[in-house]
Amino acid sequence: MHATVLHAPRDIRLDEVPDPQLRDDTDAIVRVVAACVCGSDLWPYRGVHPNPQPVRIGHEFVGIVEQVGAAVTTIRPGSFVIAPFMYSDNTCALCRHGVHTSCVNGGVWGRPDRHGVENDGAQGELVRVPQADGTLVATPQVPDAVMVAHLLTLSDVFPTGHHAAVSAGVTPGSNVVVVGDGAVGLSAVLAAKRLGAASVVAMSRHADRQELARRFGADHVVDERGRAGANQVKEIFDGIGADHVLECVGTKESMDQAMRSARPGGRIGYVGIPHDAVVDLPMMFGRNLGIAGGVAPVRAYVEELLPDVLDGTVTPGDVFDLTLPLDQVADGYRAMDERTAIKTMLRV
Amino acid sequence: MHATVLHAPRDIRLDEVPDPQLRDDTDAIVRVVAACVCGSDLWPYRGVHPNPQPVRIGHEFVGIVEQVGAAVTTIRPGSFVIAPFMYSDNTCALCRHGVHTSCVNGGVWGRPDRHGVENDGAQGELVRVPQADGTLVATPQVPDAVMVAHLLTLSDVFPTGHHAAVSAGVTPGSNVVVVGDGAVGLSAVLAAKRLGAASVVAMSRHADRQELARRFGADHVVDERGRAGANQVKEIFDGIGADHVLECVGTKESMDQAMRSARPGGRIGYVGIPHDAVVDLPMMFGRNLGIAGGVAPVRAYVEELLPDVLDGTVTPGDVFDLTLPLDQVADGYRAMDERTAIKTMLRV
Repeated sequence: MHATVLHAPRDIRLDEVPDPQLRDDTDAIVRVVAACVCGSDLWPYRGVHPNPQPVRIGHEFVGIVEQVGAAVTTIRPGSFVIAPFMYSDNTCALCRHGVHTSCVNGGVWGRPDRHGVENDGAQGELVRVPQADGTLVATPQVPDAVMVAHLLTLSDVFPTGHHAAVSAGVTPGSNVVVVGDGAVGLSAVLAAKRLGAASVVAMSRHADRQELARRFGADHVVDERGRAGANQVKEIFDGIGADHVLECVGTKESMDQAMRSARPGGRIGYVGIPHDAVVDLPMMFGRNLGIAGGVAPVRAYVEELLPDVLDGTVTPGDVFDLTLPLDQVADGYRAMDERTAIKTMLRV
Repeated sequence: MHATVLHAPRDIRLDEVPDPQLRDDTDAIVRVVAACVCGSDLWPYRGVHPNPQPVRIGHEFVGIVEQVGAAVTTIRPGSFVIAPFMYSDNTCALCRHGVHTSCVNGGVWGRPDRHGVENDGAQGELVRVPQADGTLVATPQVPDAVMVAHLLTLSDVFPTGHHAAVSAGVTPGSNVVVVGDGAVGLSAVLAAKRLGAASVVAMSRHADRQELARRFGADHVVDERGRAGANQVKEIFDGIGADHVLECVGTKESMDQAMRSARPGGRIGYVGIPHDAVVDLPMMFGRNLGIAGGVAPVRAYVEELLPDVLDGTVTPGDVFDLTLPLDQVADGYRAMDERTAIKTMLRV
């Protein structure tokens, strides 16, 4: 089969690799229908932490089940399935607490498991799925091409935006600021409105992203940053700032922006992978700010979000503004790296 | 009148100072019945941030109202009142959000206000109280000496423990770990049990504090620290750690202990003033830990906690294991500095 391999910084290729085989009786083999490129894929792509050898990549996919192991009981060949960006057994104590990302039997696509067994990346034709019953969520029927895009967002970006909103405590009537206008930030706007937020500010400087933020329900767009941006947010919200801030970037600047934009006693939901982000604990202490979030336990949210996707209440797949065949994966990375695309979908 | 003055590190004296006068028509003058020494008073006492000149000190007191300004409507001379450790108008947008510590007209005892006007410290005979209607909470009647001790804790230490529990999301049935066996940590044990926690672990190495923790309802005491302590906590809670951790110290070690003791997805309520405490954001991200808390908005909690104090449901004044007359204030500081006392009450 063909699968995407990162050979060196910015050297990404579709290579011929061996077809995956069932290994454990809890495995399934899924033929990928669509995958996508994540903002977090750009960090290895840019060589922030260079790999000594070529690595498989990609962690978001949907597809059709081809084979299942002997112990798989709920997932059936022929089903269309959504794969969260981490696999999990959905039965351990941590999964029962909704923290599937800490599953004792879990792992990540494209990286070795705890026994050193390599996992397939998602940007390929076939993926061996460990813990298939726990990991995969099947749809009632095989969707059409438009719906595939919306469903693909359930593997990561939409539930990650939702996790930011949930972690910040967004409920009906909330006022909310979203820091970050990437696909996750835009998804967070959509998620906050879906949860009933009364007023959502999207912080964005790019006309196309501002437009999508408004389409996803943003009530205000603030294009200033730093103190000026925070002051605009304060003006919008009673002169004191927002009750709920969704931090969807992970840099020092974005975390500062989030902290500045929150009112005293406010809550920050953060899902931007922290690269150089830090929190100023004494400042947080004095202003009674809280922060929660982290790597989104997508599996905990898929069943809640799926009906609203299937019935068209939300259209999270609108974040895809570039769709390419898998063999143009390198172009897909380049477009996101250069920010000419918000998010790239790969048709397999 | 006499008031406590910190002249230099460990040089604390009861000095003769001018009696306070009404200054604004929202002021009251309160004759202090009892005050106390806070763990946070020990930082200036130890000279961590030396003051260039002598300063008034103390921020916890109860007393009898002597005079009120012309605009004071709810507080009357002769009433027994509880003074939170910060004053506030109880009407501004931030007070209405329950963040009285960020009141736009608020301030701290013993420090100058925003206009440079000196405020009295609490460890003295009289205190001018700004924003008297917003700040002071009167009891239905003048309490006896035993009840005075319990009511005095409502000025800081008991609501601060309560704030840790609330910020960590403690509800009926919760499992909880308390890091810190000072007066705030012990109060946090009491507050968590009052909120219905099913199982509370107190981390303490001192027999007298362990005993008080158990009296306040702790179900388990762990006397190990670091990894060993966290492993004991994990064993107690399903092998994964606690849902709710109350951090009541503010050092690097205590914050690390709190983070290690939480299960993935857990919540940390922190009320220890951060001195060298830091949070490891990437670790928090990977484990989905949340942290909230800060300087406790005592005024927001007094009316909720007061009935349980008055009817004896809780006896938070048991944290006072040393009671001295005000003129022995220096001995009171020394006992807390040397940790021979958990908390010192000063009878005025």
